[in-house]
Amino acid sequence: MMEFSAWMSAIQARTEDALARFLPPASTAPASLHEAMRYSVLGGGKRVRPLLCHAAGEICAADPASLDAPACAAELIHAYSLVHDDLPCMDDDVLRRGKPTCHVEFGQATALLVGDALQTLAFQVLAENGGTPAMMAQLAHAAGSRGMAGGQAIDLAAVGKALSVADLEFMHIHKTGALIRAAVLLGAHAGQVDEASLADLGRFAGRVGLLFQVVDDILDAEASTATLGKTAGKDAMQHKPTYVSLLGIAEAKRKAAELRADAKLALARFGMRARRLGELTDYIAERNF
Amino acid sequence: MMEFSAWMSAIQARTEDALARFLPPASTAPASLHEAMRYSVLGGGKRVRPLLCHAAGEICAADPASLDAPACAAELIHAYSLVHDDLPCMDDDVLRRGKPTCHVEFGQATALLVGDALQTLAFQVLAENGGTPAMMAQLAHAAGSRGMAGGQAIDLAAVGKALSVADLEFMHIHKTGALIRAAVLLGAHAGQVDEASLADLGRFAGRVGLLFQVVDDILDAEASTATLGKTAGKDAMQHKPTYVSLLGIAEAKRKAAELRADAKLALARFGMRARRLGELTDYIAERNF
Repeated sequence: MMEFSAWMSAIQARTEDALARFLPPASTAPASLHEAMRYSVLGGGKRVRPLLCHAAGEICAADPASLDAPACAAELIHAYSLVHDDLPCMDDDVLRRGKPTCHVEFGQATALLVGDALQTLAFQVLAENGGTPAMMAQLAHAAGSRGMAGGQAIDLAAVGKALSVADLEFMHIHKTGALIRAAVLLGAHAGQVDEASLADLGRFAGRVGLLFQVVDDILDAEASTATLGKTAGKDAMQHKPTYVSLLGIAEAKRKAAELRADAKLALARFGMRARRLGELTDYIAERNF
Repeated sequence: MMEFSAWMSAIQARTEDALARFLPPASTAPASLHEAMRYSVLGGGKRVRPLLCHAAGEICAADPASLDAPACAAELIHAYSLVHDDLPCMDDDVLRRGKPTCHVEFGQATALLVGDALQTLAFQVLAENGGTPAMMAQLAHAAGSRGMAGGQAIDLAAVGKALSVADLEFMHIHKTGALIRAAVLLGAHAGQVDEASLADLGRFAGRVGLLFQVVDDILDAEASTATLGKTAGKDAMQHKPTYVSLLGIAEAKRKAAELRADAKLALARFGMRARRLGELTDYIAERNF
């Protein structure tokens, strides 16, 4: 079996190809919008959601070709959320994936439209490439006001407030967890899956989603802007509650270790078929960018 | 048969009910986001897209109950576009449907999320209520970078520039025409429809979409803010090219009359079954708000 790093590179490369294919060419009118959309999606990003989608699909014997659409749909939703999140009225950030953010490069109005059109494209890609209404409903639920967008609203309301760890967890389950969960479950739905396996994959995704966020908070506190490719230390600067600010760095690391172990436990029924999801869990836990 | 005004009121009322049902309750967390979403969608608007969707569905013998989802999906896309369009980085407008715009009432960050979540909800409503992947692809194509969002990018690029009437038409075919067309065709797809009828309905929708815009430009030039429920005279103030600025008011009115006649011609094959679409064409041509 392929080494994890080779598998990861292969999935990242096929995702990049698929995204480049699904995005309208920069030569198509309106060229300025399409150029900005491609700028915001291509040539960067860890592609964590596509990796999770493909790894979950492998468990369920999905044809890899059938996984490109759900993987890219999840990534396009993620990319749109970053573009809108970076806008001055939200996080007001100038750096993303080591490049100027979309609104810095193309202006706020275009960045607004880029995010809007990337969200639309996510549903279009799924609808035109084998996605069922149930899969589209799942993606929509994860992205919408009871998922990711809702999590951002909770985040907005939380700035400067005293949050409990439970409140913080509630926010992250929505803000990042819902889409990560959808990426895993969409991958599973592209193959054959029974209810019990779905339940375990859902539990796995819940743990991995929180793990991702705890590690993010630790990195924001410890890593440098150059390593992250985005502005480091922002959470503290903006007085945003994080796992680190609420728990301290040592306890946040203990929490991450616990989530990592729990995530792997949820994969028990799949045995070696869950190898990639297990490796991805380690990768998410150990990443330093 | 019911009078047009009674039919219109009935469709508007059932659309309002359906939207109120599809929108998350304001009591559901995050309450602030859900309250702002309901504020931006309910209690206003002519519901032109739902009216067109129901009228086209009637022609194709669609069950009215099956039309609520596509009608509301089109209206939710429209509502999201208004919320984002009104933002300071776009049209920077403070009045909509006689009320303060979403960002004036709830702040820019929330308005951004409201628009994002309303778009998601449009796809969710369609996916969860009988929409096929083909219908969802149609809505996505109409809303995205090669439809409505693309039209807004063209609009942005056009401010302060000398546009030909052909350029202006190209912009409007995308900016408002694509979604109006989708509303008509989604209604048809909810029933039984052959290719020739679809082509005629598409032609009708193209004409009605432009008619809608020409009338909008005439109203912006001639009507008062109080009558419109939104800021009048904005186009000239912002040096936006319009049918009135390019053609003059008399020629714009002649253009509207021509589009109105063409739209009705496209309905010829349907005879009396197209009565509501014909009446809607008159309504759109003669409205004064």
